[in-house]
Amino acid sequence: MNVFITGIGLIGGSFAIDIKATFNEASIYGIDKNEDNLDEALALGLIDYKSSIDDIKSADVVIIAIPVDATVEVLPIILDKINEDCLVFDVGSTKEKLCQTVSDHVKRRNYLAVHPIAGTEFSGPQAAIANLYRGKTNIICEVEKTAFKLQERGMEIFSRLGMRIRYMDPASHDKHIAYVSHLSHISSFMLGKTVIDKEKNERDIFDMAGSGFASTVRLAKSSPAMWAPIFRHNKDNVIETLEEYIANLEKFRRLMKEDAFDQIYQEMEDTNHIKTILKGIN
Amino acid sequence: MNVFITGIGLIGGSFAIDIKATFNEASIYGIDKNEDNLDEALALGLIDYKSSIDDIKSADVVIIAIPVDATVEVLPIILDKINEDCLVFDVGSTKEKLCQTVSDHVKRRNYLAVHPIAGTEFSGPQAAIANLYRGKTNIICEVEKTAFKLQERGMEIFSRLGMRIRYMDPASHDKHIAYVSHLSHISSFMLGKTVIDKEKNERDIFDMAGSGFASTVRLAKSSPAMWAPIFRHNKDNVIETLEEYIANLEKFRRLMKEDAFDQIYQEMEDTNHIKTILKGIN
Repeated sequence: MNVFITGIGLIGGSFAIDIKATFNEASIYGIDKNEDNLDEALALGLIDYKSSIDDIKSADVVIIAIPVDATVEVLPIILDKINEDCLVFDVGSTKEKLCQTVSDHVKRRNYLAVHPIAGTEFSGPQAAIANLYRGKTNIICEVEKTAFKLQERGMEIFSRLGMRIRYMDPASHDKHIAYVSHLSHISSFMLGKTVIDKEKNERDIFDMAGSGFASTVRLAKSSPAMWAPIFRHNKDNVIETLEEYIANLEKFRRLMKEDAFDQIYQEMEDTNHIKTILKGIN
Repeated sequence: MNVFITGIGLIGGSFAIDIKATFNEASIYGIDKNEDNLDEALALGLIDYKSSIDDIKSADVVIIAIPVDATVEVLPIILDKINEDCLVFDVGSTKEKLCQTVSDHVKRRNYLAVHPIAGTEFSGPQAAIANLYRGKTNIICEVEKTAFKLQERGMEIFSRLGMRIRYMDPASHDKHIAYVSHLSHISSFMLGKTVIDKEKNERDIFDMAGSGFASTVRLAKSSPAMWAPIFRHNKDNVIETLEEYIANLEKFRRLMKEDAFDQIYQEMEDTNHIKTILKGIN
């Protein structure tokens, strides 16, 4: 099985590790616009061969693991170049624009729209780890538009990597993921910014920060190259979540100004319910 | 050494565990307005004896580990009742109001204002753990107002528990801790609220949430009984941080509306600097 992975970073590289570990016959071909990444991926043993999009005709599976704006550009080109029996899937955090882009492509049935809910705040080939996907949710959109035998090939990979499959239409995916993922990144980035702006001239003040602060700003370490395009793709949904978030913060501020600490207590107690919701996520 | 701990939850209970482990001669007396907590603390072996504030005359050390509003009430009463050679310290997350409250107390020199930057999102006696304080920062305010030999007694405890000491005036403490701790809690609680409000009628949507969301809303599991009084005590500082945070979020929203994704990229890249700052916090 010839697996081509374009974008050998955290996400693509972690696919490479697990596919090599669970498919004895797999050969992994790496494609990356950054030649250093490719050399590093080869040195780390993530890929068997450096390759380019011109060799993609021999692929049985193509995994696109690059920022979503680049995926929109490259997906139709890859579909043009693959053979008839090749499965192409992307792993981006937005799905609607991608599905629209290729909806009329003659090889639409070779494409599977996939979003594995997995990652860390790190990036690059050296961030790739084994078992990143084990036990994680994998959302598949418009599954009915993919050829059945290629769906099966995808499922075999996702199953061996230990993923839990959920099906969803692209518009619902993008709307809900804005709440449970994209908004968290903005809240974390802006928290980091607020504190850095205020404390940048204060020596040693971050000694006062504990594990709670570290946890809440962890996502502010994420890659802008990955996240700016996600926010652009999912602009309307993300703006909606951001407006609701700002409104809730403004209400909190108003309650504080009015000394309505009983209501603040109540808001927090109602939100403690998140304990139950988060059970099972790690 | 008779150590009285009022409030046998996560913080007080974790002090009890480590003091018992590092001072062979220590007897731990528990005080808690919740009788069930006290029974549980005894059953868990956190304390040697159930006690009450009326027995506090025999204390060599009193640790106050209850919400900050209750501490303001009880600290002067405890100072009234202790013997001349007893050290009293609290571990609350705000310091200015407490220091003001006892500034003219005849036993001011028996009190040490302390804030260990340690904790988890859990609460109650069963949340108490060994080594919670090891390697953590412990902020001490107005150290010069405490009798020297009682400072030494406190330092011996903090040293055996493995804490790193920093000195700070109460006003600076409350101002900076609003940024690096209190604001994180509000950002996390309101993120949790925003998502719960939107998704409460959507079955299974939280399957889509990954470790990033879990990390960012972790603090929304925190105890409202502890946090509402902290926000009240530190009202002006917290409102200031909240206003800056909201302004940053509003700028982010404006940039999105204007499709200024290059600037959004830049904001995120500048904030990535948090990686360096967080090194060493866990």
